[in-house]
Amino acid sequence: WARAVRGLLLDISGVLYDSSADGGGVPIAGSVEAVRRIKASGLKLQFCTNETQATREKFVKKLQGMGFDISVAEVTAPAPAACRILKERSLRPHLLVHNDLVPEFAEIDKTNPNCVVIGDAAENFSYTNLNKAFQVLIGLEKPVLISLGRGRYYKETDGLKLDVGAYMKALEYACDVQAEVVGKPAKMFFESALAEMGVAPEQAIMIGDDIVNDVGGAQRCGMRALQVRTGKYRPCDEKHPEVKPDAYVNNLAEAVDIILQQL
Amino acid sequence: WARAVRGLLLDISGVLYDSSADGGGVPIAGSVEAVRRIKASGLKLQFCTNETQATREKFVKKLQGMGFDISVAEVTAPAPAACRILKERSLRPHLLVHNDLVPEFAEIDKTNPNCVVIGDAAENFSYTNLNKAFQVLIGLEKPVLISLGRGRYYKETDGLKLDVGAYMKALEYACDVQAEVVGKPAKMFFESALAEMGVAPEQAIMIGDDIVNDVGGAQRCGMRALQVRTGKYRPCDEKHPEVKPDAYVNNLAEAVDIILQQL
Repeated sequence: WARAVRGLLLDISGVLYDSSADGGGVPIAGSVEAVRRIKASGLKLQFCTNETQATREKFVKKLQGMGFDISVAEVTAPAPAACRILKERSLRPHLLVHNDLVPEFAEIDKTNPNCVVIGDAAENFSYTNLNKAFQVLIGLEKPVLISLGRGRYYKETDGLKLDVGAYMKALEYACDVQAEVVGKPAKMFFESALAEMGVAPEQAIMIGDDIVNDVGGAQRCGMRALQVRTGKYRPCDEKHPEVKPDAYVNNLAEAVDIILQQL
Repeated sequence: WARAVRGLLLDISGVLYDSSADGGGVPIAGSVEAVRRIKASGLKLQFCTNETQATREKFVKKLQGMGFDISVAEVTAPAPAACRILKERSLRPHLLVHNDLVPEFAEIDKTNPNCVVIGDAAENFSYTNLNKAFQVLIGLEKPVLISLGRGRYYKETDGLKLDVGAYMKALEYACDVQAEVVGKPAKMFFESALAEMGVAPEQAIMIGDDIVNDVGGAQRCGMRALQVRTGKYRPCDEKHPEVKPDAYVNNLAEAVDIILQQL
């Protein structure tokens, strides 16, 4: 599975660092060096995250603080992708997102909303806020719900937390609509990350910890995909009824070892 | 549709009273008299509610305060039905319900939970509480989720609110389980209400404001069902792709007029 590779697409949380570690962000052993080795090898590299709890600027700064060689331009993230869609279709969103993500929508007209954009709002997923988003949607003649991902849950210091996908399902059901998902596993999202690298799907490998959104999404896009046994990985993922990674690796460092040996 | 009737099954909120009216509970014009007229006619009568924001005792007291002739024994409600299931299957619930409903579960062992029971928890649907229920479920080898209804939303004084069904969907998706629904539109729930009256389905008429849970549920059970144009009724219900009531009536009083004329 490691042959004829020209570019790597890396998930961030659970692959580069562990968001559930004490202190809320410690690099996974070997990952800082793994990123440096990819860059030194001449392989193309893009990061592909569903992170929507902070602007890319803030998020990248945190990763740089952990020692990662990473820049904003190397990160494909849902909020900028959503902004492109909003502009193209003249949509004015009601935002149900994390406070720290709001600046990504600074240039978007949010008056008199005609759609709802939902991200991983964390503490902002209050009863009141969820009802507000619902009331906007149900009040529209043709409700439009844009979701920044469809993740089920993720791991934090104090345990597993419901991710945006769960709240998306709640609003979909209540309003009888289907959300338009921006972010993994949407095909368009992987395609825009590949376009950033200038690499064809069959020349790229996705490395992620999420069996459905990272592995399944990338494979449906024509890429190979590895699941790391870090982050949100659970042993039962290996018996997933629908998705089978091209390989399992213990962590990013091991994946990079194998890939670089094949070059 | 009004012929050969022996019993009536009445939804409560949106049929007897309007929970969205100022002050949070005013009888719908003619409904107090309509209940009295049903009882005077000799027809059997049972109330069938998905109300899970209060114990039946408290709820019935509120209705009596509005002038309704109603007693606890006449009300079929989800919490007592759930308690029967919990006892039968030795399930110990983690409760995600309204504070006022907790006393209904007083006799149920809640230590070391092996299932989650979700009701219309209203303000208790906080980010923290939803994560707690999720963590209990995802930690079980075989997650069991019991939902006290599957309503999408309801109307309150300050607007439409998400109902238990939306949060049920969130947990279903996050844990990849299917909830067992107690309450309307579950067939068993209507059947136990019919059993209380001692009336066969084809001799009974359900009167409700919810096109899916009242009308659709009762019809699947072999009953006739009317939709009132009060409560959560919306004009677009009349174009529902799957459910068609046996008749529309403006309100309960009109339904009772027509039914009593046929006796």
